Amino acid sequence: MSNRIAAILIAALSISLPHIATAAEEGIIRLEGDRIQKERKHLRIPAVNGMQAIKCDFHMHTVFTDGHVWPNVRVQEAWRDGLDAFAFTEHAEYAPYQADVKRDPGRSYELAKGGAAEHNLTLVKGIEITRNTPPGHFNAIFIKDASKFPADRKEELDQVSVDEAIAQDAFLFWNHPGWKAKEIPGSYEWIPFVEKLHQEKKLHGIEVANGHGIHTKAIDWALERNLTIIGNTDVHNLISHEYKGHRTMTLVFAKDRSAEAIREALVAGRTVAWAGKYLIGREDNAKGLFEAAVKVAPVHHEATDRNNAKRKFREVTNDSDLVFEMKARGLPKIVLNPGSTQLVSFPAEWTEVEWQVTNVFVGTEKRLKVKVSLP
Amino acid sequence: MSNRIAAILIAALSISLPHIATAAEEGIIRLEGDRIQKERKHLRIPAVNGMQAIKCDFHMHTVFTDGHVWPNVRVQEAWRDGLDAFAFTEHAEYAPYQADVKRDPGRSYELAKGGAAEHNLTLVKGIEITRNTPPGHFNAIFIKDASKFPADRKEELDQVSVDEAIAQDAFLFWNHPGWKAKEIPGSYEWIPFVEKLHQEKKLHGIEVANGHGIHTKAIDWALERNLTIIGNTDVHNLISHEYKGHRTMTLVFAKDRSAEAIREALVAGRTVAWAGKYLIGREDNAKGLFEAAVKVAPVHHEATDRNNAKRKFREVTNDSDLVFEMKARGLPKIVLNPGSTQLVSFPAEWTEVEWQVTNVFVGTEKRLKVKVSLP
Amino acid sequence: MSNRIAAILIAALSISLPHIATAAEEGIIRLEGDRIQKERKHLRIPAVNGMQAIKCDFHMHTVFTDGHVWPNVRVQEAWRDGLDAFAFTEHAEYAPYQADVKRDPGRSYELAKGGAAEHNLTLVKGIEITRNTPPGHFNAIFIKDASKFPADRKEELDQVSVDEAIAQDAFLFWNHPGWKAKEIPGSYEWIPFVEKLHQEKKLHGIEVANGHGIHTKAIDWALERNLTIIGNTDVHNLISHEYKGHRTMTLVFAKDRSAEAIREALVAGRTVAWAGKYLIGREDNAKGLFEAAVKVAPVHHEATDRNNAKRKFREVTNDSDLVFEMKARGLPKIVLNPGSTQLVSFPAEWTEVEWQVTNVFVGTEKRLKVKVSLP
Amino acid sequence: MSNRIAAILIAALSISLPHIATAAEEGIIRLEGDRIQKERKHLRIPAVNGMQAIKCDFHMHTVFTDGHVWPNVRVQEAWRDGLDAFAFTEHAEYAPYQADVKRDPGRSYELAKGGAAEHNLTLVKGIEITRNTPPGHFNAIFIKDASKFPADRKEELDQVSVDEAIAQDAFLFWNHPGWKAKEIPGSYEWIPFVEKLHQEKKLHGIEVANGHGIHTKAIDWALERNLTIIGNTDVHNLISHEYKGHRTMTLVFAKDRSAEAIREALVAGRTVAWAGKYLIGREDNAKGLFEAAVKVAPVHHEATDRNNAKRKFREVTNDSDLVFEMKARGLPKIVLNPGSTQLVSFPAEWTEVEWQVTNVFVGTEKRLKVKVSLP
Repeated sequence: MSNRIAAILIAALSISLPHIATAAEEGIIRLEGDRIQKERKHLRIPAVNGMQAIKCDFHMHTVFTDGHVWPNVRVQEAWRDGLDAFAFTEHAEYAPYQADVKRDPGRSYELAKGGAAEHNLTLVKGIEITRNTPPGHFNAIFIKDASKFPADRKEELDQVSVDEAIAQDAFLFWNHPGWKAKEIPGSYEWIPFVEKLHQEKKLHGIEVANGHGIHTKAIDWALERNLTIIGNTDVHNLISHEYKGHRTMTLVFAKDRSAEAIREALVAGRTVAWAGKYLIGREDNAKGLFEAAVKVAPVHHEATDRNNAKRKFREVTNDSDLVFEMKARGLPKIVLNPGSTQLVSFPAEWTEVEWQVTNVFVGTEKRLKVKVSLP
Repeated sequence: MSNRIAAILIAALSISLPHIATAAEEGIIRLEGDRIQKERKHLRIPAVNGMQAIKCDFHMHTVFTDGHVWPNVRVQEAWRDGLDAFAFTEHAEYAPYQADVKRDPGRSYELAKGGAAEHNLTLVKGIEITRNTPPGHFNAIFIKDASKFPADRKEELDQVSVDEAIAQDAFLFWNHPGWKAKEIPGSYEWIPFVEKLHQEKKLHGIEVANGHGIHTKAIDWALERNLTIIGNTDVHNLISHEYKGHRTMTLVFAKDRSAEAIREALVAGRTVAWAGKYLIGREDNAKGLFEAAVKVAPVHHEATDRNNAKRKFREVTNDSDLVFEMKARGLPKIVLNPGSTQLVSFPAEWTEVEWQVTNVFVGTEKRLKVKVSLP
Repeated sequence: MSNRIAAILIAALSISLPHIATAAEEGIIRLEGDRIQKERKHLRIPAVNGMQAIKCDFHMHTVFTDGHVWPNVRVQEAWRDGLDAFAFTEHAEYAPYQADVKRDPGRSYELAKGGAAEHNLTLVKGIEITRNTPPGHFNAIFIKDASKFPADRKEELDQVSVDEAIAQDAFLFWNHPGWKAKEIPGSYEWIPFVEKLHQEKKLHGIEVANGHGIHTKAIDWALERNLTIIGNTDVHNLISHEYKGHRTMTLVFAKDRSAEAIREALVAGRTVAWAGKYLIGREDNAKGLFEAAVKVAPVHHEATDRNNAKRKFREVTNDSDLVFEMKARGLPKIVLNPGSTQLVSFPAEWTEVEWQVTNVFVGTEKRLKVKVSLP
Repeated sequence: MSNRIAAILIAALSISLPHIATAAEEGIIRLEGDRIQKERKHLRIPAVNGMQAIKCDFHMHTVFTDGHVWPNVRVQEAWRDGLDAFAFTEHAEYAPYQADVKRDPGRSYELAKGGAAEHNLTLVKGIEITRNTPPGHFNAIFIKDASKFPADRKEELDQVSVDEAIAQDAFLFWNHPGWKAKEIPGSYEWIPFVEKLHQEKKLHGIEVANGHGIHTKAIDWALERNLTIIGNTDVHNLISHEYKGHRTMTLVFAKDRSAEAIREALVAGRTVAWAGKYLIGREDNAKGLFEAAVKVAPVHHEATDRNNAKRKFREVTNDSDLVFEMKARGLPKIVLNPGSTQLVSFPAEWTEVEWQVTNVFVGTEKRLKVKVSLP
């Protein structure tokens, strides 16, 4: 009896057998259950004050500079990871594979834009302005033409390069400000070159989270000068070989996922960087995100503790994919995992609780504090 | 230098170090990161027509009959698994541990009711009426007093037992109708005893899913006689040693999770049984659930295929924790996993799509069909 | 066309379809792929000096005292977790469920011994001697008769209780010596009662790891007085609700898994306690275990680094299910995960490497150091 | 108090804190616990008759033809996946990225050979001879010079291309013989072109497993003509985006992992292809592998079943990373997962058992049968 007949019978019976080898073709077994299927996993980040949380990564490389993948892989990764928007930022001044790959820092955008549109992803034109450190590297996004940027690193071109970005009306941010903190003493400082950019209003943001590193000094730099807080992967390798959980990204609170809306929100500073369990943002943004994600439910139970004190039980819920580590005087510490609820018994007389949210940075040395009234 | 000083310094720095051994006490390392913390994982099932999906398991055992756990474990499991309501259904007529454990089929309810209230879970009083097969077993839930049920299986007590349930105003359902299909020929039939119960309006539901088995013949029995479709675990062992994913359960579409609202919904037949990837329900309930969970987004992209035909790309999303396997003539089969989105390119001229949802049973031999208009 | 015919055809074709609902019985779908099957996962711990690593947990509770499960669950858990031997240690003096469960601290052994034999597990008779703290609790294993131990905690029975253990030729160890370190000041000390036991050679071991806590002060106590180092779960709840990875246990290096061989090894002190990523043991045992698990392979590659220094590449492998965190001056830190290999480039002139193994305690403040010659 | 001081204190205390953000540098948090570390996972396949199981994938692509990655990614993947040997097989006749990437089917080998050596991987020179279907594609491995192969697909070059492989003393195998079975009727046949190759002894193997497909007709073709059975990924995309478990590969039973030893084994036909749960091989190889992996332990327990028949309990163990699905008349079916043991109770009088191993193909329609004597 042939597999073909079995296949017909199975089909006739309309039995769906998804996680297995199916025998639907004569002489072929397809191991569909062993294959990772193409799908986008939902990344649940709540809207804040009516603004959607647009998930963005504005720093990545491909074989067109020193990345390890063809641009289509970045589209695939972005879609699977639940990103909404991204930018290629090939190095303008560095192209180690040029013996094999034609040099063109704008090429990855061109090759990926069709795939991005098909996957409903917003692809923003970008470039990495790769100067010696200091001053280090800058990303220009929302540029017009990657080919206009100088292709070498002579020091006198530092200013030329960033001015080209400004001429193209780019949004400019300083990358990984502390990346050579150990190797180049003094490199992790707010240097005159950067201060000058800031004075001339040419610098718009700063990457406080880059890959698996958080550059905490940069948080206060951003807050003091009203620079937008950014987090990116700077990925060269595969996301799936680098991150156990979500990739590092910037949550941009925007009207929608269009390039225009994202830019408006970046300029307005409505962002929170997300790296590992950490969130880093301006206090209003961080607080808004916490309040949108974490809810205290009404009392569902009352009881008396060992010391005969009355306690009221409420559920504390986090329906987002973020983590929150919360302490309040008089309560045990809570690690509120993604998509989970915990029971908390509050002293009966409390009408509000003040959480210190220890994994949310709102300053270099400052964690978020939030008062929540108890229903 | 002592660990205590380090602990103070770490605390002073307000660095949170969650996934590790902390050294906060002199001479103690606490492996908090290796411990599974007490938390309730969200189980995302959408509301249907304004009715919440209340997650229920009305069939479970403890050491008070032939289960392997103390009643508090069932509370713990229910809470972690995201259930909203449950019932102990100890055997009235069977107590294999009675040499060690005092016989009382109502005892598990008494021992667990405090914990259930603390965990915001609705605990319903129940009992399993354990007769020989046929007729087999019945569960009575919303009973008043478990001690009133006969404690032995003499055949003449079959009717007495179910009548006691009715006298207590219970909701009565037939358990696992096909559980001895192989061992007792003819046992998996709609027998006169059950027909009589039905005629006298004493039978209200039928367990089409029991643990890892779906008794498909019972689907049509339920539909033809307007019995409520039920799915339960009938767990004796640990949930965590039995289920790779979610446990088998009944989704009850009710106003809220109160016992009254659940009963109203059960009587009205607003349920879908959920076992493995399968959903089993009356067509209106199954369709409502599908439509609440699966959304087709507006066109985000258009393209021309190899045959020069125009295609429109839309995202098909499933924000629930359910799975849907969907076929439509002219489209590839889709397995839409929990919390995920897939790209579908539809022929440009289509204004609607008719999905056959092959993992959703709306009859013994019938799968759900749904027409969805394309935005 | 019936499912039965399909089933016959599928069987005839000898197509195995394991991870799915099979339709092998008329009207029944069995969700075998969603069920966790009964199997024992291999736990790979190498033999040391010709002695097998017998995986033991000598501290657990059931409903016969204050545990949450029937004894058969402990057999099931032990087998699945890869244990070789275990003991029930019900409290002699504490039985909170006695209104429902007949009081008998030896009953769990009796109920489980058949299942243990069937599962090829060595079940050792034990009891917990539950005194007030201080002196705290002691476990007596290899006892003869649990019923002989006093059932109340009057202070004058402290000595009687442990003497009963000795009279029964038990192996006696002090449990969780620091468990009330915070609540009862001075309780986490080497007290006269215990010193007296030690002097009289009545105390044979000490539990340095209990559940998710490591009581580091006890390590030096054990080493100074030649007490056997023990690690146990002290589980009351479900293992699967408490441990993300392996449970806490004692690795006993014995001739085989028989009770006699285990006892001989315990008396000889050939143990390492394993809790989370930590290993705790006498230096000879810890070193033996490290050397059996971690291997440095011969040079497979040579290269010159940036500073023009020659490096030799070797694989460092860990074929066990243990973790080793290793530092050596001049090399990057290594976290050597279970069943994995890492590449290490050593300076070409090195003939040996001295690892500091930071997750292996060989004293309260001392980590294992091992010199390994480089092949 | 600065993070730097904390870092020094933490270091001084020699507390290892691996899974967290460390604060070892002023103003930098490194999320090491969120990073996937570079390590090679052990893939446990037993030696067979003194020959090691060398894990090989002889079919993969990079950006130099139509793959999505730079060659270094293939080294990284191979090492992480536990492969021992691999080959790039760029298309000689197809280079869709040539507008951007210099055309050279031998370039990926050149770029990766250093990394392969560093990672102790055997890299074999290969090429894909990409003809129209039929005859379809062939892989030539152990070639000398990829640049010598014709770069276009004119039919008259079919023979020239394979002859070039033979001239270079390559090992030649037919790829995915059924890959266009549906699209090109008659394409999945043993065609004259291939028969001629076979007659002239130019064809040495056949790819029965390619990615997620098993081409079962090819099994008998291989057995009848003494061709070596091969399984490969033919990966273009990322392994980590395609495979839930292990990648498809060929297990080559060779003296060691050197290119010479692998070739000797290939020529001798000592291989088993491994795809999903399936193993496909010549009976001697398949049987050897089964017997090396699956062991029946001596009787550890005896009991009497319900029918008063004596049963002997033995452990059936599988210490490999393979799966075996085993049936024997009179025993329940076993799915023996990687690194696991199951209890089997055999009728007491049995002295041997004959397993049918339903996931091991030793012919197009034939599964492995093995008699095992019971200790």
